[in-house]
Amino acid sequence: MHPAPVDRLIAELGKLPGIGRRTAQRLAFHILRSSDEDAFALATAIREVKERIGLCETCFNLAEGPTCAICSDPRRSRELICVVEEPQDVIPIERTGEYRGLYHVLGGALSPIDGIDPDDLRIDELVRRVEAGEIEEVVIATNPTTTGEATAHHIGERLRDRVTLTRLASGLPVGADLEHADEVTLGRALTGRRSV
Amino acid sequence: MHPAPVDRLIAELGKLPGIGRRTAQRLAFHILRSSDEDAFALATAIREVKERIGLCETCFNLAEGPTCAICSDPRRSRELICVVEEPQDVIPIERTGEYRGLYHVLGGALSPIDGIDPDDLRIDELVRRVEAGEIEEVVIATNPTTTGEATAHHIGERLRDRVTLTRLASGLPVGADLEHADEVTLGRALTGRRSV
Repeated sequence: MHPAPVDRLIAELGKLPGIGRRTAQRLAFHILRSSDEDAFALATAIREVKERIGLCETCFNLAEGPTCAICSDPRRSRELICVVEEPQDVIPIERTGEYRGLYHVLGGALSPIDGIDPDDLRIDELVRRVEAGEIEEVVIATNPTTTGEATAHHIGERLRDRVTLTRLASGLPVGADLEHADEVTLGRALTGRRSV
Repeated sequence: MHPAPVDRLIAELGKLPGIGRRTAQRLAFHILRSSDEDAFALATAIREVKERIGLCETCFNLAEGPTCAICSDPRRSRELICVVEEPQDVIPIERTGEYRGLYHVLGGALSPIDGIDPDDLRIDELVRRVEAGEIEEVVIATNPTTTGEATAHHIGERLRDRVTLTRLASGLPVGADLEHADEVTLGRALTGRRSV
């Protein structure tokens, strides 16, 4: 129905999460109408995140280069590690302004039903960071969901007696996820963290 | 908060219509997680529509090359022109399978409040196509909105006595019910009633 390049763009946009065919078509026609400059800026931004963004060698957060901005920051406490599921979970915690330690991004949560075992997450890497000796406390900030709690429990077993282990306090509604938590609630959860 | 290329991608995605900051962030993280192949396919598709798609020299529909697929099709009747506001309006008319003529895409609708005058639309080009002589009927298929009706009226004035002029019928959508029809639509359906 459309010229081939338009159909291809609609198909590619339609692969994005939450973008149905109608929305993909609307976005494609918007891109057709917009200036070359705007369209190329979007295309370049997509290429650049793939070409320039990798994972931090230490904490597996997003990084431009081998080490992320947080691990590179000399003002951050090296005695405290906050364990999260995904890179986007770092943002809401940073936004609270309550946390000055480092992170460890697991890359997901344990979910046997989806075939995600401890080996699929960066748990061994966390254990090695703790064994290296500098860390005094690990704050487990996996989501308060079934899979997040299972992951917290598993990490608790692995790190018991090696380090002070804490878990984000109540304040987060069960079933919610970190990415969409408001700062005040998340700040309370941080200050009220309890030992596991 | 994010590495600069991630922030740039979120900003560029957020410029798309109907994509707020939260959605832009979700899409950006999806692109970060997806394969290089998928992300580059999207970036390339965006570049290609801008590089390869222009407007048909005859009807101003989208075209790869100087003439669109419909104007190039020898099976289409050259005596009938359907006037629409935008390229995307061609699609639903084609989908009916009821129309075998050509098109003329105006590039918008008259809207003095937005500063869109007849000179901003491709109305002179339409008049020239009619003056060239081959055309017998012009079907005005601008939207049944204030601006679309004003545009239809203006074109009617310009082409009166030169060609047969028709307008898409207004009335009840198929499958609708009387009880929920708005007064204006129902009024149109009444004045436009046809003998059974």
